Amino acid sequence: MSEATTPTGYKIALDCMGGDLGPSEAVAAAAIAVREGIIGPNDTLILVGHEDNLRQLATDNRIIKSKRVAFKHAPGIVQPDDAAMTVLKSKRDSSMLIALEMLKSGEADVVISTGNTKALVAAGTIKVRAMEGAERPALAAIMPRREGHFVMLDVGANPEAKPEHLVHNAVLGSIYAQSALGIQSPRVGLLSVGTEEGKGGARINRTHTLLKAMGDKINYIGPVEGFDVFGDACDVVVTDGFTGNVILKTLEGLVYMVRDMVGKKVKSNPVYLAGGIAMFPLLRDLKGKLKPERYGGAPLLGLAGLVMKAHGSSNKQGIASAIRLGIEALGHDAKKRMQVALAEANTVISSTPVEE
Amino acid sequence: MSEATTPTGYKIALDCMGGDLGPSEAVAAAAIAVREGIIGPNDTLILVGHEDNLRQLATDNRIIKSKRVAFKHAPGIVQPDDAAMTVLKSKRDSSMLIALEMLKSGEADVVISTGNTKALVAAGTIKVRAMEGAERPALAAIMPRREGHFVMLDVGANPEAKPEHLVHNAVLGSIYAQSALGIQSPRVGLLSVGTEEGKGGARINRTHTLLKAMGDKINYIGPVEGFDVFGDACDVVVTDGFTGNVILKTLEGLVYMVRDMVGKKVKSNPVYLAGGIAMFPLLRDLKGKLKPERYGGAPLLGLAGLVMKAHGSSNKQGIASAIRLGIEALGHDAKKRMQVALAEANTVISSTPVEE
Repeated sequence: MSEATTPTGYKIALDCMGGDLGPSEAVAAAAIAVREGIIGPNDTLILVGHEDNLRQLATDNRIIKSKRVAFKHAPGIVQPDDAAMTVLKSKRDSSMLIALEMLKSGEADVVISTGNTKALVAAGTIKVRAMEGAERPALAAIMPRREGHFVMLDVGANPEAKPEHLVHNAVLGSIYAQSALGIQSPRVGLLSVGTEEGKGGARINRTHTLLKAMGDKINYIGPVEGFDVFGDACDVVVTDGFTGNVILKTLEGLVYMVRDMVGKKVKSNPVYLAGGIAMFPLLRDLKGKLKPERYGGAPLLGLAGLVMKAHGSSNKQGIASAIRLGIEALGHDAKKRMQVALAEANTVISSTPVEE
Repeated sequence: MSEATTPTGYKIALDCMGGDLGPSEAVAAAAIAVREGIIGPNDTLILVGHEDNLRQLATDNRIIKSKRVAFKHAPGIVQPDDAAMTVLKSKRDSSMLIALEMLKSGEADVVISTGNTKALVAAGTIKVRAMEGAERPALAAIMPRREGHFVMLDVGANPEAKPEHLVHNAVLGSIYAQSALGIQSPRVGLLSVGTEEGKGGARINRTHTLLKAMGDKINYIGPVEGFDVFGDACDVVVTDGFTGNVILKTLEGLVYMVRDMVGKKVKSNPVYLAGGIAMFPLLRDLKGKLKPERYGGAPLLGLAGLVMKAHGSSNKQGIASAIRLGIEALGHDAKKRMQVALAEANTVISSTPVEE
């Protein structure tokens, strides 16, 4: 896939310092990306962080001599519990903020970061300007369903989305689902509390009217309920950053609860223990399936540059997967197509009268 | 508990026609309620529906001669997929609407219904006036967590709740948690996307300010994230009817997905099959634990009369449990205490300046 990138190649800035497993995991991920051809021959992977440290790790991982690997020094580190405002005000020398500055100046085409989500969303929104036609970015997560996966957005960037933002999320998520899930014409659903028209309040109704007015510009299937999203109702679930974030975190909480319950039960009773051992492969599969963001990366869509958030606990495979998703999202003229789609959406938004 | 009811007793109207399992299950539930003393000696359980049919079922269940059982004829039936507006306009003779009319006129103190949630919420809101001090009702569900249960409200009555509605939900939910979960001073959390102040947008911030200003009138612990609700963070989770409904239905969807995955895996591989059989009691426990509304009833709080929604698929035990929850919620002067708490909340709301 990435072999077909532009002749000059993409410049991928990897924030190596923010993950729970530290820079050694990030550099190990870089080595996977180089060896497995995730990084194309003309692309450059720029490792951002404490340079001496990163060069030593690159030597250990035998990628120090690769012409596809470069370094950018950043002495500071964003901690997992740093408040967004603290990071913006007093951590300008951090690997996260320096990587975002590189994106803004054109030194990088995409930033991959395992850093603290709130800081990344806030810094990404403030440091990198909005994509032409967009107003507020949206974080797009890939979630499991019965068969395969779907995209849900926004999972946390813009908690009070207006109807026009939700329409932007719909077109951006649709184009992202094409690159990330390989679906030609992704079915887009609007998360609501009922599938009858008129349910969900004025904000949802206006969004529904606008999405219908988009006609064949988008494969809009109508409102969907929470009950449907793990079935096969649609490929892109559109919601605001408050609801999406709450769903994502509630599911995480539920997965941990189930895991703990299974663990306790298995210990409490020999019958469960025997069953537990036999069921181990199934439980592992379930856990993998239910783990949010298993695809490794959630892009912040709607910015002039691409910011890809990887889970803080990502291992090298997870980070390499986020690098792959980032490069795929850069390909196929996605940015140009997103701008065209946003312009079309804005035409529909401004020409569709608000119903009384 | 119910032995301590008022000397004149409570009048409980049971809408017998709306459940998936039909009137035979509702009347069987009535028999449990009478035999197990859920209905106190001075209380009356009024079976609402097709009277001839109900009298025959009451004979079969040997409660036809009980002086604690009465009948109210209603020829119409609300179907599970009837739109709310259809019910309000053309099903005035249904057991659901006649039961609500009884509540309004004082013929009943509480309505228990397994009928279609949307119709019940709409008809309850329109037919029964708001409780003094409240504006919009909220549906309160009892949900499982690692240990025990918590109350979440609103799970679907008022999708676009304003800060004052969320404060009302907090005080109503707090009093309900006392009767339903037996917790003296329930810890109240406001569902948000971060626990730092300033997260979650203007609506959440204003609500947070108001709840803090309530002082010792409520045991408010601050914002909670979706991640925390299945832990032991708080006993009452306050949110709007859009987010709460989406969470409830998403969890239902997830539970079904897990059940199907387990079923498929177990069939696909003899190793899983052996494990599956040994794990059967665990899976059944998990399913019970994760099933939303396992407590059988979710009250519509904030109305002048009490409406208790039971799950459409409730069996006789579930319906009997809803009857018990309804009687408990009538007890302990709950209505009076809710009115006092709402008045206190409204004083705080009107005297707390909106921050710029």
